[in-house]
Amino acid sequence: MTDSPRLFPEKITIFGVGLLGGSFALALRARGAAVTITGWGRNEERLRQAYDRGILDSFTTDAADACRDADLILLATPVDTFRDSVAGMCRHLKPGAIVTDVGSVKGTLVSRLEALVSGHARFVGAHPIAGGEASGFEAARADLFEGERCIITPTPKTDRDALRTVTAIWESLGMAVEQMSPDRHDEVFARVSHFPHLVAYALVNAVAGHDGAVLGYAGSGFRDTTRIAQSSPELWSGILMANRDEVLAAGSEFRKKFEQIMNALAAEDRASLKAALARAQTARASVQNRKATGE
Amino acid sequence: MTDSPRLFPEKITIFGVGLLGGSFALALRARGAAVTITGWGRNEERLRQAYDRGILDSFTTDAADACRDADLILLATPVDTFRDSVAGMCRHLKPGAIVTDVGSVKGTLVSRLEALVSGHARFVGAHPIAGGEASGFEAARADLFEGERCIITPTPKTDRDALRTVTAIWESLGMAVEQMSPDRHDEVFARVSHFPHLVAYALVNAVAGHDGAVLGYAGSGFRDTTRIAQSSPELWSGILMANRDEVLAAGSEFRKKFEQIMNALAAEDRASLKAALARAQTARASVQNRKATGE
Repeated sequence: MTDSPRLFPEKITIFGVGLLGGSFALALRARGAAVTITGWGRNEERLRQAYDRGILDSFTTDAADACRDADLILLATPVDTFRDSVAGMCRHLKPGAIVTDVGSVKGTLVSRLEALVSGHARFVGAHPIAGGEASGFEAARADLFEGERCIITPTPKTDRDALRTVTAIWESLGMAVEQMSPDRHDEVFARVSHFPHLVAYALVNAVAGHDGAVLGYAGSGFRDTTRIAQSSPELWSGILMANRDEVLAAGSEFRKKFEQIMNALAAEDRASLKAALARAQTARASVQNRKATGE
Repeated sequence: MTDSPRLFPEKITIFGVGLLGGSFALALRARGAAVTITGWGRNEERLRQAYDRGILDSFTTDAADACRDADLILLATPVDTFRDSVAGMCRHLKPGAIVTDVGSVKGTLVSRLEALVSGHARFVGAHPIAGGEASGFEAARADLFEGERCIITPTPKTDRDALRTVTAIWESLGMAVEQMSPDRHDEVFARVSHFPHLVAYALVNAVAGHDGAVLGYAGSGFRDTTRIAQSSPELWSGILMANRDEVLAAGSEFRKKFEQIMNALAAEDRASLKAALARAQTARASVQNRKATGE
């Protein structure tokens, strides 16, 4: 923590070389960043495949080896593994190293990771809003982050230089970086991301549970509405658990609006029914496709 | 009803020249069908625009004029207008004419329309599974129906020649035609289409109701999940009302699966939570994109 670090790190280690970790590596290379990229994972064979594809310069299944020389460590494993990963890596970190992440949940996780890293290195929480229901480095793309938004969640304890570095990296990959408190982040993303996943999973279970044939008649509306129910159950059960309070609160808000529409329908109250749908249509019309509009 | 009609009608009248009615006309023309197409609607200016675009050969706002010479009348207005339209046109229909529709709801509506038409002409219920959240003839496309499925809902009273004609028309536009009873149709489409719309509208209302800024952070997952909430409130309040019992039943089925996931989350029961998501993921993986797979 004594040296004044270069703005852009030279040696980067990615924990978890999947869709996001792999795309981060590919995006850095596509932009010509002068970096050496090491991959850490549990499965050596998978790491070797990512290496063979040119995603990684080196790889290891040993966390200590993975961290020792790194200027920046990117946590890109499922969010519920971050605490153990960071606890395990701390004493191997180079002083002044930056630990950052791509996790979909921030909140108390940020203060926990901050506390673990403190005294060893510097933690900055980040959430690039990109991805999709696919997983694995096979789905990784150099342009995954381009034109999308990245939320960075500093706290009063966040090192300002580390914050600038993490901001510069995501901006260099074409992202619009925005700051938000960890708690506000979780409040927002429970509603626009985590809870909608829960709804999509529940909707598929309801339709599939009716009888075996019904799902065969799904059209493009159903397919789009439930696309995110193809997302990894391991990853998403972890995200829902990690942001449990806000997701449950979003669920209560949903129940009210859902029952409002169901009640209008049950009562054959066409005017109230139509008014509720019209409110939703108007609100939905305000949601822009960032890439399409070039915002 | 005495003449043995040609399999393919020569004079077609479309009631409601919107996305579906307009696409039907464009598709017939693109396939080189030797038909004359008349459009009926309430708004003469809109009809004139559709005429100017080459969608229609003629147009009228007078239902009697629209029906008099038609071999086939396609109902493509919102489903809740079908009964009044058909009641008004009956005595103007050419004997043996076929009345068919593109409505998303069948069930008791089919027997009502069948009874109204009986003695004047022949009714065949149909539901081409195509469309989208856009509306109006501006969104019409000649290939809208291609490669998609069309459900035809005959009853014991359905005229077999009329059934063959309606089947032949949709097949000529590239659709895979399948028969289903009107009640089974409504049971199936409540679950894969009507109720998912209700969920999407409710989800948008819940998120928009939290605070004004949250929706601004919607990513592609939320956008896809709620795309159908951009659909017309007028049209969809009519569809939900017309298939009320099945939509309410689908709502009860959804509530159970939704609360199952919410309860697992509230209880921090990771195993049950993950198992519920995994069931949904597996079921969703079985849903194919018909156009993409060329099924």
